[in-house]
Amino acid sequence: MHLRISELLSAMETLAIFAYAISGLIEARRRNLDVVGAFIVAFLTAFGGGTLRDLLLERRPFYWVEHQNYVLILFAMSLAAPFLLKSTTRVVSSRALLVADAVGLGLFSISGTSMAIAMGLPMFTSVMMGVITGVFGGVLRDVLCNEVPLVLRDSRPYATCAFLGCWVYIALQRNGIEPDISAASATGFILVARLLTYRFRVRLPR
Amino acid sequence: MHLRISELLSAMETLAIFAYAISGLIEARRRNLDVVGAFIVAFLTAFGGGTLRDLLLERRPFYWVEHQNYVLILFAMSLAAPFLLKSTTRVVSSRALLVADAVGLGLFSISGTSMAIAMGLPMFTSVMMGVITGVFGGVLRDVLCNEVPLVLRDSRPYATCAFLGCWVYIALQRNGIEPDISAASATGFILVARLLTYRFRVRLPR
Amino acid sequence: MHLRISELLSAMETLAIFAYAISGLIEARRRNLDVVGAFIVAFLTAFGGGTLRDLLLERRPFYWVEHQNYVLILFAMSLAAPFLLKSTTRVVSSRALLVADAVGLGLFSISGTSMAIAMGLPMFTSVMMGVITGVFGGVLRDVLCNEVPLVLRDSRPYATCAFLGCWVYIALQRNGIEPDISAASATGFILVARLLTYRFRVRLPR
Repeated sequence: MHLRISELLSAMETLAIFAYAISGLIEARRRNLDVVGAFIVAFLTAFGGGTLRDLLLERRPFYWVEHQNYVLILFAMSLAAPFLLKSTTRVVSSRALLVADAVGLGLFSISGTSMAIAMGLPMFTSVMMGVITGVFGGVLRDVLCNEVPLVLRDSRPYATCAFLGCWVYIALQRNGIEPDISAASATGFILVARLLTYRFRVRLPR
Repeated sequence: MHLRISELLSAMETLAIFAYAISGLIEARRRNLDVVGAFIVAFLTAFGGGTLRDLLLERRPFYWVEHQNYVLILFAMSLAAPFLLKSTTRVVSSRALLVADAVGLGLFSISGTSMAIAMGLPMFTSVMMGVITGVFGGVLRDVLCNEVPLVLRDSRPYATCAFLGCWVYIALQRNGIEPDISAASATGFILVARLLTYRFRVRLPR
Repeated sequence: MHLRISELLSAMETLAIFAYAISGLIEARRRNLDVVGAFIVAFLTAFGGGTLRDLLLERRPFYWVEHQNYVLILFAMSLAAPFLLKSTTRVVSSRALLVADAVGLGLFSISGTSMAIAMGLPMFTSVMMGVITGVFGGVLRDVLCNEVPLVLRDSRPYATCAFLGCWVYIALQRNGIEPDISAASATGFILVARLLTYRFRVRLPR
C-alpha cells in the first residue's frame, strides 16, 4: 500500500516537472523566443524551485543532476515545441494546464516542506521553504520573460494555497499520520484549494 | 558599556530589516500587488541581502531561519498593509523612510563586511561582500517589480556610501578600535554620508 | 609546451572576463546608468557565470575572491568609462566586442564543463553546467537592465555553440587527448562556431 503511494507521488512529481516545463514553453512561445531560449526558460521553470531549495538547504546532488533523463526529455520537447505547440495548445487546453500547474505547485511545495522538516528546521521556516520551492520556478520564468511575476500580481490565491497546504502537511504529520499519506493529502489539499478558489473567482485583497 | 552598544546594534538591525520591509511594501503598493505578492516582495527586500551574503560565505542558518518571529511580524504587516499603508505613508513620511533605509544600508553593509573579515577574506573582497549585503535586497525588490534597480540608475551616492563606510570600518578595526565601536561608527558614517549627499544633491558622474 | 597552453588559457580567461565586463559597461552606458551602476553591471556580467557555477558545484573561493586585482581593474574601468567609452566604442568596434565575447563564451563554458567533469558529474549535467557558466553573466546583465536576456530572444546560435563545444571537449577528453589541448580546441570550436554562424546569419527556428 505504502509503496503504491510512493509510486503515485513519484509519478506526480514527474508530472509536476513537465507541467511546469510546458508552462515555460508556452510563455517562451508567447514571447517569440528561439528554440534554445525556450529550453532555458522551460528548464528554469521546471527545476528552478527545487534548485533554490537545494541551495538553501545545502542538499546535493540537484534534482536535474539526479534525473538527467528528464532534462533530455525537456530538451527534446523544446526542439519539438515550434512544430507541436500549436496543436498542443489545442489539446492541452488552458484548463489542463491549470490542473497540471496546480499539481506541480502542490508537489513542489510539500516536497520542500517535508525536506526542511526532516532536516530539523522550525515549522514556519519549513513552510516558507515549501512555498519558495513551489513558487520560484514560475517567478524565474516571469523575470526572464521581463514580466512582474504572476504570483505577485495575480490576485488569485496561489502561494496562499501552497502556504495553507504546507501547514496541513505539518498538522497531519504531527498527529502521527504516515509521511506518505500526509504528503499525498496535503498535495491534494493544495490542488483542490487552487482549483476551487480559481473556479469560484476568490480574490485576495490588494 | 560594550553590552549597550551590542544592544544598540541589535536594535538597529531590527530597525533595518523593517525599514527594508516597509520599502518593499510601499513598492508593492505602487505596483498594485496583492497581499501575498506584497509579503514576498517585503520578505525578499528585507532578507535578500543577508541570504545572498550567507550563500556566498557558506553561513547557516539563514537570518530569517534564526529570527522566525521577524518573518511572522512581516507577515502580519503585509496582511495589514492594504488597510494601514495609506495612513502609514502619511505618518512614515518619505523622509522617515529615507532615514530608515539609510540605517538599513549601513547596518547590512557593515554586518557583511565584518563577517567576511572574521572569516579571513581579503579586505577588498570583504568590502564587496558588505556592499552586496547592503544593496541586494533593494535590487531584488526592483527586479521583481520589473524595474531597473534604483541603485543602478539613481545617480545619487548609495552603494558608494556603503563602499566608503566599509573601508572606514576596516580602517578603524585595523587601528585597534573595538569591533562594536568600529561597527557603530562605520554604520553612522554610512547613514550620515547617505543623508548629507542626498540633502546636498551630490551626483555621481554618468 | 603544455605550460605554454596553460598560459594561453590563463591569458584567454583574463581576456574573457574583461570582454564580458566591457559588454556590461557598454550596456550600462546605453541605459544611462551612473558610475556605480556601471561597475555593478560590469562586475555581475564578468563574474556572474563563474559565481553561479561555484555555488552549484560548491567550489570556494569564488573567482573574484581569488583574483581581487581583476575586481580592482574593473573598478578603475568603471570610473574611467564615462570619459573613455565614447572613444573606446570607436576603437573597440562592435566587431572586436563580438570576438571578445565569443572568446569569453568559449572559455567560461569549457571551464565550467571541465570542472564539473573533474568532480565526477555525469556528462550531460557537465555540459549544462558549462553552458550555464558561459551564459549566465549575460543573462544577469540583461535582467538587471530590465530586458529579456539576449540569449533567449536573439535567434542566432549562442548557447547552442557553447553546448556543442562542451560536447566537443568531452569527446576529445574521452579519446585520451590532453586536458589542456582538449580545452583549447573546444574553446576554439565555440569561438569559430559563434563567429561563423554570426557571419553567415544562421538562425535557430522559433
